[in-house]
Amino acid sequence: MAAKRVSGVALGTGPEFDRIRAIAAVLGDARALGDDCAVVAVGDTSIVLSTDASVEGVHFRRDWLSLEEIGWRSAAAALSDLAAAGADCIGILAAVTVPTSSKEGELLELMRGVSGATQAVGGLVLGGDLTRGPVWSATITVVGRAAQPVSRAGACPGDALWVTGHLGGARAALAEWTAGRSPSAAQREAFAHPEPRLPAGRWLARHGARAMLDISDGLAADAGHLAAASAVRLEIDLALVPCAPGIRPEVAGHEPEARATFAAAGGEDYELLAAMPDRFGAADASAFARDCGLPLTRIGRIRDGAGVALLLDGAPVEITGYDHFA
Amino acid sequence: MAAKRVSGVALGTGPEFDRIRAIAAVLGDARALGDDCAVVAVGDTSIVLSTDASVEGVHFRRDWLSLEEIGWRSAAAALSDLAAAGADCIGILAAVTVPTSSKEGELLELMRGVSGATQAVGGLVLGGDLTRGPVWSATITVVGRAAQPVSRAGACPGDALWVTGHLGGARAALAEWTAGRSPSAAQREAFAHPEPRLPAGRWLARHGARAMLDISDGLAADAGHLAAASAVRLEIDLALVPCAPGIRPEVAGHEPEARATFAAAGGEDYELLAAMPDRFGAADASAFARDCGLPLTRIGRIRDGAGVALLLDGAPVEITGYDHFA
Repeated sequence: MAAKRVSGVALGTGPEFDRIRAIAAVLGDARALGDDCAVVAVGDTSIVLSTDASVEGVHFRRDWLSLEEIGWRSAAAALSDLAAAGADCIGILAAVTVPTSSKEGELLELMRGVSGATQAVGGLVLGGDLTRGPVWSATITVVGRAAQPVSRAGACPGDALWVTGHLGGARAALAEWTAGRSPSAAQREAFAHPEPRLPAGRWLARHGARAMLDISDGLAADAGHLAAASAVRLEIDLALVPCAPGIRPEVAGHEPEARATFAAAGGEDYELLAAMPDRFGAADASAFARDCGLPLTRIGRIRDGAGVALLLDGAPVEITGYDHFA
Repeated sequence: MAAKRVSGVALGTGPEFDRIRAIAAVLGDARALGDDCAVVAVGDTSIVLSTDASVEGVHFRRDWLSLEEIGWRSAAAALSDLAAAGADCIGILAAVTVPTSSKEGELLELMRGVSGATQAVGGLVLGGDLTRGPVWSATITVVGRAAQPVSRAGACPGDALWVTGHLGGARAALAEWTAGRSPSAAQREAFAHPEPRLPAGRWLARHGARAMLDISDGLAADAGHLAAASAVRLEIDLALVPCAPGIRPEVAGHEPEARATFAAAGGEDYELLAAMPDRFGAADASAFARDCGLPLTRIGRIRDGAGVALLLDGAPVEITGYDHFA
């Protein structure tokens, strides 16, 4: 299905975008809604901004993560939007709600994680707001800078589709916890301590990325957002998806394609999906790996048309991501 | 009591600032914490930023306000920080949590209020985040621009202290509701529909404001923050405090000074407190009233020393503001 345009914004299909469309109609003007970051031009620099809420019971559970990990994850989730824009991090603002039952020092533990993730990408905690609330939550607003921010729009037929890192580790951790088991150390780390890909995003922007987004809602769902914003069709070969090691058949299933399908559907990975010009090739991916310490894998291509085709041996496979609002 | 300095930030006394001090120690570097806005220099412009959470059951109750009013108030509370910096509004980002029990259209009602308050000061909704949560909450991050942002620091002995508008109306509404009565229409409006004072803040900045802040925690408490940040003593004559009309003895008390004391302690007013050079006088206040459609009242002066003295017939009176975190 083709994307609908609201006030110049091309949005994907599905309930999340139906809500954004309805809000855009109320706002009258909503140029930036629907991309990872809002962009404000200041002289010849662009300031890029994004806000991201992490709420106890919705995005995390206290029995799975320490408060420092919750703080790290909350900040990393927001910082990941700067990575997708190919931006530097200037800093963040943290609005934290703390339950009345919280103990002395717990807020500091959470802030230590928020600050750790921010400092890890060269940013500063610029300000914030503290308030009581029924549960823990951290709403992180990130402020970055880019000469030419990369958006979700701009992918062209003929471009190739690349993804950073490995997928499915964070989803495997969630699946193991949900089933009452403990995830492996690596899977737990993928969920608890994601590294926002700012150096990778800037590297890809410098090397000609036409469109980029982070795949926190899962490769399958987020590919749809890139397709809609760029008004193109994405074809992804599931056999090429770089799966995190150690995803067990108990959580992914026993079919030969189960791990790739599981990894493509799983969210919370905070890796980047980028449309690169066709000339970008294996030697460039090696240079990326050397510079960023991270694999970069070609998983598909951009064609004329609309939507996303996930292919296994050339045949389409149906996968859906998830929606935090649902 | 004198302010303590943490990483170059002078903070006031009290539990709110004890928490900020502890966080600043964790962060290592927290230059901007403690002021209304964070400031990011971009070329010869300053981008000013602030984030502000409004949480159901803490900052508002559904049976007091409509969702549109809740949205307006949440945005106005955050926009008020731009007013205190003497800044223009570029736009806002809105992170909204919506309870599972919410009905179709309720989110749009809230966003209509957020958007209304933002557009009323010339800003745009730049982006946001929607998520489920246990209660309604709106965390608004404001983005503004100022050639030379005004901070809480900078008041000098000899300056005079001025306040915009009338105080105590919002607190009277809260007091009437809490006592099970209905506030007057004007008091309800003061609470439900505060107007962030951006034109007033810019006017005062242009006319030499040395230090400024919004008095959302109440004149008495916020005066202490200005005193601490500027390392001066504030003397406020309670008899000069411009009280909102119609504050009834049932809520304020029956003593002659009761209304002024009630107004000076009451929060949620979103008026501005400014330290102006001594040469700024009655004719300037008239020009302000003409340009901004709002009274500007001289209520005290800045002296050497520390802290705030609230004076009635020259004798000190003890008043405390309130703390949303408590």
